[in-house]
Amino acid sequence: MKKPTLEYHLTICKNLLCDSHTMKLDQELKQEGGELYRSIKFVEPLPTLSSISTGKVDANGDVLYPPVNFSMVDYGIYRSSFPDSANFSFLKSLDLRSIVYLCPEAYPEHNLEFLKSNRIQLFQFGIEGTKEPFINIPEDTIREALKVVLDVRNHPLLIHCKRGKHRTGCLVGCLRKMQQWSLLSIFDEYQKFAAAKARVSDQRFMELFDASSLK
Amino acid sequence: MKKPTLEYHLTICKNLLCDSHTMKLDQELKQEGGELYRSIKFVEPLPTLSSISTGKVDANGDVLYPPVNFSMVDYGIYRSSFPDSANFSFLKSLDLRSIVYLCPEAYPEHNLEFLKSNRIQLFQFGIEGTKEPFINIPEDTIREALKVVLDVRNHPLLIHCKRGKHRTGCLVGCLRKMQQWSLLSIFDEYQKFAAAKARVSDQRFMELFDASSLK
Repeated sequence: MKKPTLEYHLTICKNLLCDSHTMKLDQELKQEGGELYRSIKFVEPLPTLSSISTGKVDANGDVLYPPVNFSMVDYGIYRSSFPDSANFSFLKSLDLRSIVYLCPEAYPEHNLEFLKSNRIQLFQFGIEGTKEPFINIPEDTIREALKVVLDVRNHPLLIHCKRGKHRTGCLVGCLRKMQQWSLLSIFDEYQKFAAAKARVSDQRFMELFDASSLK
Repeated sequence: MKKPTLEYHLTICKNLLCDSHTMKLDQELKQEGGELYRSIKFVEPLPTLSSISTGKVDANGDVLYPPVNFSMVDYGIYRSSFPDSANFSFLKSLDLRSIVYLCPEAYPEHNLEFLKSNRIQLFQFGIEGTKEPFINIPEDTIREALKVVLDVRNHPLLIHCKRGKHRTGCLVGCLRKMQQWSLLSIFDEYQKFAAAKARVSDQRFMELFDASSLK
Protein backbone atom coordinates (compact mmCIF):
# COMPACT_ATOMS: atom_id res chain seq x y z
CA MET A 1 0.00 0.00 0.00
CA LYS A 2 1.07 3.55 -0.49
CA LYS A 3 2.59 5.01 2.67
CA PRO A 4 0.59 7.99 3.85
CA THR A 5 3.67 10.14 3.40
CA LEU A 6 3.86 13.82 4.09
CA GLU A 7 4.61 14.49 0.42
CA TYR A 8 1.53 12.58 -0.67
CA HIS A 9 -0.79 14.45 1.64
CA LEU A 10 0.76 17.78 0.80
CA THR A 11 0.30 17.02 -2.88
CA ILE A 12 -3.38 16.39 -2.25
CA CYS A 13 -3.60 19.61 -0.19
CA LYS A 14 -2.10 21.43 -3.15
CA ASN A 15 -4.61 19.78 -5.53
CA LEU A 16 -7.47 20.74 -3.26
CA LEU A 17 -6.29 24.33 -2.92
CA CYS A 18 -6.03 24.63 -6.69
CA ASP A 19 -9.48 23.13 -7.21
CA SER A 20 -11.13 24.75 -4.27
CA HIS A 21 -13.70 27.40 -4.86
CA THR A 22 -13.23 28.66 -1.35
CA MET A 23 -9.69 29.12 -0.18
CA LYS A 24 -10.04 27.84 3.33
CA LEU A 25 -6.55 28.60 4.42
CA ASP A 26 -4.05 31.27 3.66
CA GLN A 27 -1.37 30.43 1.24
CA GLU A 28 1.35 32.49 -0.28
CA LEU A 29 3.97 31.93 -2.87
CA LYS A 30 7.39 33.22 -2.05
CA GLN A 31 10.77 33.16 -3.65
CA GLU A 32 13.61 32.37 -1.32
CA GLY A 33 17.12 31.35 -2.13
CA GLY A 34 16.27 30.65 -5.76
CA GLU A 35 13.46 28.25 -4.91
CA LEU A 36 9.77 28.83 -5.22
CA TYR A 37 7.84 27.76 -2.22
CA ARG A 38 4.34 27.82 -0.96
CA SER A 39 3.61 28.21 2.68
CA ILE A 40 0.34 27.07 4.14
CA LYS A 41 -0.79 28.27 7.49
CA PHE A 42 -3.31 26.34 9.52
CA VAL A 43 -4.71 27.07 12.89
CA GLU A 44 -4.58 24.70 15.88
CA PRO A 45 -6.54 22.71 16.81
CA LEU A 46 -7.62 20.93 13.66
CA PRO A 47 -10.85 18.90 13.64
CA THR A 48 -10.22 15.51 15.17
CA LEU A 49 -13.47 13.73 14.58
CA SER A 50 -14.22 12.62 11.08
CA SER A 51 -16.99 14.57 9.38
CA ILE A 52 -18.96 11.29 9.43
CA SER A 53 -19.53 11.40 13.15
CA THR A 54 -20.44 15.06 13.18
CA GLY A 55 -23.20 14.28 10.71
CA LYS A 56 -22.00 16.53 7.96
CA VAL A 57 -21.70 13.89 5.27
CA ASP A 58 -24.87 14.42 3.36
CA ALA A 59 -27.09 17.37 4.14
CA ASN A 60 -30.32 15.84 2.86
CA GLY A 61 -29.72 12.42 4.41
CA ASP A 62 -30.08 10.46 1.19
CA VAL A 63 -28.88 6.88 1.06
CA LEU A 64 -25.88 6.37 -1.19
CA TYR A 65 -25.41 3.52 -3.65
CA PRO A 66 -21.79 2.65 -4.42
CA PRO A 67 -21.47 0.85 -7.76
CA VAL A 68 -21.38 -2.95 -7.56
CA ASN A 69 -17.89 -4.26 -6.74
CA PHE A 70 -16.85 -0.87 -5.38
CA SER A 71 -13.79 -0.77 -3.17
CA MET A 72 -10.95 1.50 -2.15
CA VAL A 73 -7.64 0.23 -3.55
CA ASP A 74 -5.27 2.71 -1.93
CA TYR A 75 -5.05 6.39 -1.01
CA GLY A 76 -6.83 8.20 -3.82
CA ILE A 77 -7.54 5.08 -5.91
CA TYR A 78 -10.91 3.31 -6.11
CA ARG A 79 -12.32 0.49 -8.25
CA SER A 80 -15.78 -0.58 -9.29
CA SER A 81 -18.05 -1.89 -12.02
CA PHE A 82 -19.55 0.50 -14.59
CA PRO A 83 -21.39 3.21 -12.65
CA ASP A 84 -24.84 4.33 -13.69
CA SER A 85 -26.99 7.26 -12.64
CA ALA A 86 -28.11 5.54 -9.39
CA ASN A 87 -24.47 5.73 -8.31
CA PHE A 88 -23.81 9.37 -9.19
CA SER A 89 -24.54 10.82 -5.72
CA PHE A 90 -22.11 8.36 -4.24
CA LEU A 91 -19.45 9.13 -6.86
CA LYS A 92 -19.90 12.83 -6.19
CA SER A 93 -19.03 12.21 -2.55
CA LEU A 94 -15.63 10.84 -3.60
CA ASP A 95 -14.55 14.18 -5.15
CA LEU A 96 -13.00 12.33 -8.10
CA ARG A 97 -10.54 14.07 -10.37
CA SER A 98 -10.25 11.23 -12.90
CA ILE A 99 -11.81 8.02 -14.13
CA VAL A 100 -9.76 5.27 -15.79
CA TYR A 101 -12.15 3.41 -18.09
CA LEU A 102 -11.01 0.06 -19.46
CA CYS A 103 -13.66 -0.81 -22.07
CA PRO A 104 -13.36 0.01 -25.78
CA GLU A 105 -17.01 1.14 -26.11
CA ALA A 106 -17.83 4.85 -26.21
CA TYR A 107 -18.66 6.33 -22.81
CA PRO A 108 -22.42 6.84 -22.46
CA GLU A 109 -23.79 10.36 -22.79
CA HIS A 110 -25.31 10.67 -19.31
CA ASN A 111 -22.06 9.48 -17.76
CA LEU A 112 -20.12 12.04 -19.83
CA GLU A 113 -22.46 14.75 -18.56
CA PHE A 114 -21.84 13.70 -15.00
CA LEU A 115 -18.08 13.86 -15.60
CA LYS A 116 -18.35 17.27 -17.18
CA SER A 117 -20.49 18.73 -14.38
CA ASN A 118 -18.03 17.46 -11.82
CA ARG A 119 -14.85 18.33 -13.70
CA ILE A 120 -13.71 14.71 -13.82
CA GLN A 121 -11.23 13.77 -16.52
CA LEU A 122 -11.80 10.54 -18.46
CA PHE A 123 -8.85 8.33 -19.41
CA GLN A 124 -9.91 5.50 -21.70
CA PHE A 125 -7.80 2.38 -22.27
CA GLY A 126 -9.97 0.02 -24.30
CA ILE A 127 -9.48 -3.67 -23.58
CA GLU A 128 -11.89 -6.11 -25.24
CA GLY A 129 -14.19 -7.80 -22.80
CA THR A 130 -15.01 -11.41 -23.41
CA LYS A 131 -16.66 -14.45 -21.89
CA GLU A 132 -13.83 -16.62 -23.16
CA PRO A 133 -11.64 -17.98 -20.37
CA PHE A 134 -8.33 -17.75 -22.24
CA ILE A 135 -8.06 -14.31 -23.80
CA ASN A 136 -4.83 -12.39 -23.40
CA ILE A 137 -4.78 -8.99 -21.75
CA PRO A 138 -2.75 -6.44 -23.80
CA GLU A 139 0.29 -5.58 -21.69
CA ASP A 140 1.08 -2.20 -23.25
CA THR A 141 -2.41 -0.96 -22.51
CA ILE A 142 -2.13 -2.04 -18.89
CA ARG A 143 1.21 -0.24 -18.59
CA GLU A 144 -0.20 2.99 -20.01
CA ALA A 145 -3.19 2.77 -17.67
CA LEU A 146 -0.90 2.16 -14.70
CA LYS A 147 1.05 5.33 -15.42
CA VAL A 148 -2.17 7.32 -15.17
CA VAL A 149 -3.24 5.52 -11.99
CA LEU A 150 0.11 6.14 -10.32
CA ASP A 151 0.19 9.84 -11.14
CA VAL A 152 -0.92 11.57 -7.95
CA ARG A 153 -2.04 14.59 -9.96
CA ASN A 154 -4.96 12.45 -11.18
CA HIS A 155 -6.12 11.52 -7.68
CA PRO A 156 -8.72 10.79 -6.40
CA LEU A 157 -9.28 8.36 -9.27
CA LEU A 158 -11.75 5.54 -10.06
CA ILE A 159 -10.82 2.49 -12.16
CA HIS A 160 -13.70 0.63 -13.78
CA CYS A 161 -14.58 -1.67 -16.65
CA LYS A 162 -17.97 -3.34 -17.06
CA ARG A 163 -18.27 -5.60 -14.04
CA GLY A 164 -15.18 -4.58 -12.12
CA LYS A 165 -13.89 -8.17 -12.13
CA HIS A 166 -11.42 -8.98 -14.93
CA ARG A 167 -9.98 -5.94 -16.65
CA THR A 168 -10.11 -3.89 -13.43
CA GLY A 169 -8.91 -6.96 -11.53
CA CYS A 170 -5.85 -7.30 -13.79
CA LEU A 171 -4.94 -3.64 -13.56
CA VAL A 172 -5.20 -3.66 -9.77
CA GLY A 173 -3.27 -6.96 -9.64
CA CYS A 174 -0.40 -5.40 -11.60
CA LEU A 175 -0.49 -2.38 -9.27
CA ARG A 176 -0.20 -4.79 -6.34
CA LYS A 177 2.77 -6.43 -8.03
CA MET A 178 4.47 -3.06 -8.15
CA GLN A 179 3.58 -2.69 -4.47
CA GLN A 180 5.42 -5.99 -3.90
CA TRP A 181 2.41 -7.96 -2.72
CA SER A 182 2.86 -11.73 -2.75
CA LEU A 183 1.11 -13.58 -5.59
CA LEU A 184 -0.95 -15.37 -2.95
CA SER A 185 -2.38 -12.03 -1.75
CA ILE A 186 -2.80 -10.70 -5.30
CA PHE A 187 -4.80 -13.77 -6.36
CA ASP A 188 -6.78 -13.70 -3.14
CA GLU A 189 -7.83 -10.09 -3.75
CA TYR A 190 -8.57 -10.84 -7.44
CA GLN A 191 -10.83 -13.71 -6.35
CA LYS A 192 -12.82 -11.53 -3.96
CA PHE A 193 -14.05 -9.45 -6.90
CA ALA A 194 -14.14 -12.07 -9.66
CA ALA A 195 -15.66 -14.77 -7.44
CA ALA A 196 -17.02 -17.65 -9.56
CA LYS A 197 -15.90 -15.88 -12.75
CA ALA A 198 -12.17 -15.89 -11.96
CA ARG A 199 -10.07 -16.44 -15.12
CA VAL A 200 -6.85 -18.38 -15.35
CA SER A 201 -5.64 -16.07 -18.15
CA ASP A 202 -5.94 -13.00 -15.88
CA GLN A 203 -4.02 -14.69 -13.08
CA ARG A 204 -1.35 -15.92 -15.47
CA PHE A 205 -1.03 -12.40 -16.88
CA MET A 206 -0.54 -10.94 -13.41
CA GLU A 207 2.01 -13.59 -12.48
CA LEU A 208 4.07 -12.91 -15.60
CA PHE A 209 3.78 -9.11 -15.43
CA ASP A 210 7.19 -7.48 -15.01
CA ALA A 211 6.62 -4.93 -12.29
CA SER A 212 10.21 -3.71 -12.02
CA SER A 213 9.48 -0.56 -13.99
CA LEU A 214 6.85 1.08 -16.11
CA LYS A 215 9.07 1.71 -19.11
CA MET B 1 -16.62 7.42 1.97
CA LYS B 2 -14.72 10.16 3.65
CA LYS B 3 -14.18 13.15 1.40
CA PRO B 4 -10.48 13.82 0.96
CA THR B 5 -10.93 17.23 2.53
CA LEU B 6 -8.18 19.73 3.11
CA GLU B 7 -8.72 19.49 6.87
CA TYR B 8 -8.34 15.72 6.79
CA HIS B 9 -5.08 15.80 4.87
CA LEU B 10 -3.69 18.61 6.98
CA THR B 11 -4.54 16.65 10.11
CA ILE B 12 -2.56 13.74 8.74
CA CYS B 13 0.30 16.09 7.84
CA LYS B 14 0.26 17.31 11.42
CA ASN B 15 0.26 13.70 12.72
CA LEU B 16 3.17 12.83 10.46
CA LEU B 17 5.18 15.86 11.50
CA CYS B 18 4.65 15.02 15.15
CA ASP B 19 5.61 11.40 14.62
CA SER B 20 8.36 11.96 12.16
CA HIS B 21 11.87 11.12 13.16
CA THR B 22 13.18 13.23 10.35
CA MET B 23 11.55 16.58 9.88
CA LYS B 24 11.32 16.60 6.14
CA LEU B 25 9.99 20.07 5.85
CA ASP B 26 10.38 23.21 7.82
CA GLN B 27 7.71 24.03 10.22
CA GLU B 28 7.41 26.73 12.78
CA LEU B 29 4.97 27.58 15.44
CA LYS B 30 4.03 31.21 15.70
CA GLN B 31 1.69 33.26 17.72
CA GLU B 32 -0.27 35.80 15.76
CA GLY B 33 -3.33 37.72 16.79
CA GLY B 34 -3.92 35.48 19.78
CA GLU B 35 -4.00 32.28 17.74
CA LEU B 36 -1.35 29.61 17.62
CA TYR B 37 -0.55 28.56 14.13
CA ARG B 38 1.83 26.29 12.39
CA SER B 39 3.17 27.13 9.01
CA ILE B 40 4.49 24.43 6.73
CA LYS B 41 6.68 25.29 3.82
CA PHE B 42 7.04 22.97 0.89
CA VAL B 43 8.97 23.37 -2.26
CA GLU B 44 7.51 23.24 -5.77
CA PRO B 45 7.29 20.98 -7.64
CA LEU B 46 6.03 18.22 -5.40
CA PRO B 47 6.54 14.60 -6.49
CA THR B 48 3.80 13.67 -8.93
CA LEU B 49 4.50 10.03 -9.43
CA SER B 50 3.67 7.77 -6.58
CA SER B 51 6.69 6.36 -4.79
CA ILE B 52 5.58 2.96 -6.12
CA SER B 53 6.60 3.72 -9.68
CA THR B 54 9.91 5.25 -8.69
CA GLY B 55 10.79 1.99 -6.98
CA LYS B 56 11.24 3.35 -3.50
CA VAL B 57 8.70 1.19 -1.76
CA ASP B 58 10.89 -1.46 -0.28
CA ALA B 59 14.65 -1.08 -0.41
CA ASN B 60 15.48 -4.75 -0.18
CA GLY B 61 12.79 -5.86 -2.65
CA ASP B 62 11.10 -8.33 -0.29
CA VAL B 63 7.65 -9.59 -1.11
CA LEU B 64 4.96 -8.38 1.28
CA TYR B 65 2.19 -10.51 2.76
CA PRO B 66 -0.95 -8.59 3.74
CA PRO B 67 -2.97 -10.49 6.36
CA VAL B 68 -5.81 -12.61 4.98
CA ASN B 69 -8.95 -10.57 4.30
CA PHE B 70 -6.95 -7.35 4.24
CA SER B 71 -8.56 -4.32 2.64
CA MET B 72 -8.61 -0.56 2.82
CA VAL B 73 -11.93 0.69 4.21
CA ASP B 74 -11.43 4.43 3.82
CA TYR B 75 -8.71 7.05 4.15
CA GLY B 76 -6.61 5.96 7.10
CA ILE B 77 -8.76 2.91 7.97
CA TYR B 78 -7.87 -0.69 7.12
CA ARG B 79 -9.34 -4.08 8.02
CA SER B 80 -8.00 -7.61 8.16
CA SER B 81 -7.86 -10.92 9.97
CA PHE B 82 -5.49 -11.43 12.93
CA PRO B 83 -1.98 -10.54 11.68
CA ASP B 84 0.97 -12.76 12.51
CA SER B 85 4.68 -12.26 12.13
CA ALA B 86 4.63 -13.10 8.40
CA ASN B 87 2.52 -9.95 7.96
CA PHE B 88 4.65 -7.58 10.04
CA SER B 89 6.70 -6.17 7.14
CA PHE B 90 3.52 -5.36 5.32
CA LEU B 91 1.94 -3.77 8.40
CA LYS B 92 5.05 -1.68 8.89
CA SER B 93 4.57 -0.27 5.39
CA LEU B 94 1.17 1.10 6.44
CA ASP B 95 2.68 3.38 9.11
CA LEU B 96 -0.13 2.51 11.50
CA ARG B 97 -0.80 4.64 14.54
CA SER B 98 -3.45 2.37 16.06
CA ILE B 99 -4.97 -1.08 15.98
CA VAL B 100 -8.59 -1.72 16.96
CA TYR B 101 -8.72 -5.31 18.19
CA LEU B 102 -12.14 -6.90 18.58
CA CYS B 103 -11.43 -10.21 20.38
CA PRO B 104 -11.55 -10.66 24.16
CA GLU B 105 -8.38 -12.80 24.29
CA ALA B 106 -5.12 -11.22 25.44
CA TYR B 107 -2.98 -9.88 22.59
CA PRO B 108 -0.06 -12.24 21.87
CA GLU B 109 3.37 -11.25 23.11
CA HIS B 110 5.12 -11.11 19.73
CA ASN B 111 2.31 -8.91 18.35
CA LEU B 112 2.64 -6.61 21.39
CA GLU B 113 6.37 -6.32 20.74
CA PHE B 114 5.72 -5.37 17.13
CA LEU B 115 3.27 -2.69 18.27
CA LYS B 116 5.72 -1.36 20.82
CA SER B 117 8.61 -1.19 18.32
CA ASN B 118 6.42 0.68 15.87
CA ARG B 119 4.71 2.95 18.38
CA ILE B 120 1.27 1.60 17.52
CA GLN B 121 -1.45 2.02 20.11
CA LEU B 122 -3.76 -0.92 20.82
CA PHE B 123 -7.46 -0.37 21.45
CA GLN B 124 -9.19 -3.56 22.55
CA PHE B 125 -12.95 -4.04 22.42
CA GLY B 126 -13.57 -7.68 23.25
CA ILE B 127 -16.52 -9.31 21.50
CA GLU B 128 -16.98 -13.06 21.93
CA GLY B 129 -16.34 -14.98 18.77
CA THR B 130 -18.55 -17.98 18.12
CA LYS B 131 -19.49 -20.54 15.52
CA GLU B 132 -23.15 -20.11 16.44
CA PRO B 133 -25.22 -18.45 13.71
CA PHE B 134 -27.48 -16.42 16.00
CA ILE B 135 -25.34 -14.66 18.60
CA ASN B 136 -25.98 -11.02 19.30
CA ILE B 137 -23.27 -8.43 18.81
CA PRO B 138 -23.04 -6.04 21.83
CA GLU B 139 -24.09 -2.63 20.55
CA ASP B 140 -22.34 -0.52 23.19
CA THR B 141 -19.01 -2.13 22.38
CA ILE B 142 -19.46 -1.42 18.69
CA ARG B 143 -20.31 2.22 19.46
CA GLU B 144 -17.20 2.66 21.59
CA ALA B 145 -15.06 1.05 18.91
CA LEU B 146 -16.58 3.32 16.26
CA LYS B 147 -15.62 6.43 18.22
CA VAL B 148 -12.00 5.29 18.14
CA VAL B 149 -12.17 4.44 14.44
CA LEU B 150 -13.66 7.81 13.55
CA ASP B 151 -11.09 9.81 15.51
CA VAL B 152 -8.62 11.02 12.89
CA ARG B 153 -5.94 11.36 15.58
CA ASN B 154 -5.80 7.55 15.60
CA HIS B 155 -5.20 7.23 11.86
CA PRO B 156 -3.81 5.30 10.05
CA LEU B 157 -5.68 2.53 11.90
CA LEU B 158 -6.25 -1.22 11.38
CA ILE B 159 -9.41 -3.02 12.54
CA HIS B 160 -9.13 -6.76 13.06
CA CYS B 161 -10.66 -9.69 14.90
CA LYS B 162 -9.72 -13.32 14.27
CA ARG B 163 -10.75 -13.96 10.68
CA GLY B 164 -11.77 -10.44 9.65
CA LYS B 165 -15.25 -11.64 8.73
CA HIS B 166 -17.90 -11.18 11.44
CA ARG B 167 -16.84 -8.82 14.21
CA THR B 168 -14.78 -6.72 11.82
CA GLY B 169 -17.56 -7.05 9.25
CA CYS B 170 -20.16 -5.71 11.72
CA LEU B 171 -18.01 -2.78 12.77
CA VAL B 172 -17.30 -1.79 9.18
CA GLY B 173 -20.99 -2.29 8.30
CA CYS B 174 -22.01 0.13 11.05
CA LEU B 175 -19.40 2.61 9.80
CA ARG B 176 -20.93 2.30 6.33
CA LYS B 177 -24.35 2.98 7.83
CA MET B 178 -22.99 6.21 9.25
CA GLN B 179 -21.60 6.93 5.78
CA GLN B 180 -25.16 6.49 4.47
CA TRP B 181 -24.46 3.46 2.33
CA SER B 182 -27.55 1.54 1.23
CA LEU B 183 -28.18 -1.74 3.05
CA LEU B 184 -27.75 -3.51 -0.29
CA SER B 185 -24.18 -2.17 -0.56
CA ILE B 186 -23.44 -2.82 3.11
CA PHE B 187 -24.54 -6.46 2.85
CA ASP B 188 -22.70 -6.87 -0.44
CA GLU B 189 -19.44 -5.67 1.13
CA TYR B 190 -20.04 -7.82 4.23
CA GLN B 191 -20.52 -10.88 1.98
CA LYS B 192 -17.22 -10.28 0.15
CA PHE B 193 -15.34 -10.88 3.38
CA ALA B 194 -17.61 -13.36 5.13
CA ALA B 195 -18.27 -15.43 1.97
CA ALA B 196 -19.80 -18.79 2.87
CA LYS B 197 -19.71 -17.92 6.57
CA ALA B 198 -22.05 -14.92 6.37
CA ARG B 199 -24.29 -14.68 9.45
CA VAL B 200 -27.89 -13.55 9.55
CA SER B 201 -27.39 -12.17 13.08
CA ASP B 202 -24.61 -9.83 11.86
CA GLN B 203 -26.70 -8.55 8.98
CA ARG B 204 -29.72 -8.07 11.22
CA PHE B 205 -27.53 -6.17 13.69
CA MET B 206 -26.28 -3.85 10.97
CA GLU B 207 -29.79 -3.26 9.63
CA LEU B 208 -31.09 -2.30 13.07
CA PHE B 209 -28.07 -0.19 14.07
CA ASP B 210 -29.06 3.42 14.67
CA ALA B 211 -26.39 5.40 12.86
CA SER B 212 -27.83 8.85 13.49
CA SER B 213 -25.31 9.57 16.23
CA LEU B 214 -22.68 7.93 18.37
CA LYS B 215 -24.12 8.99 21.70
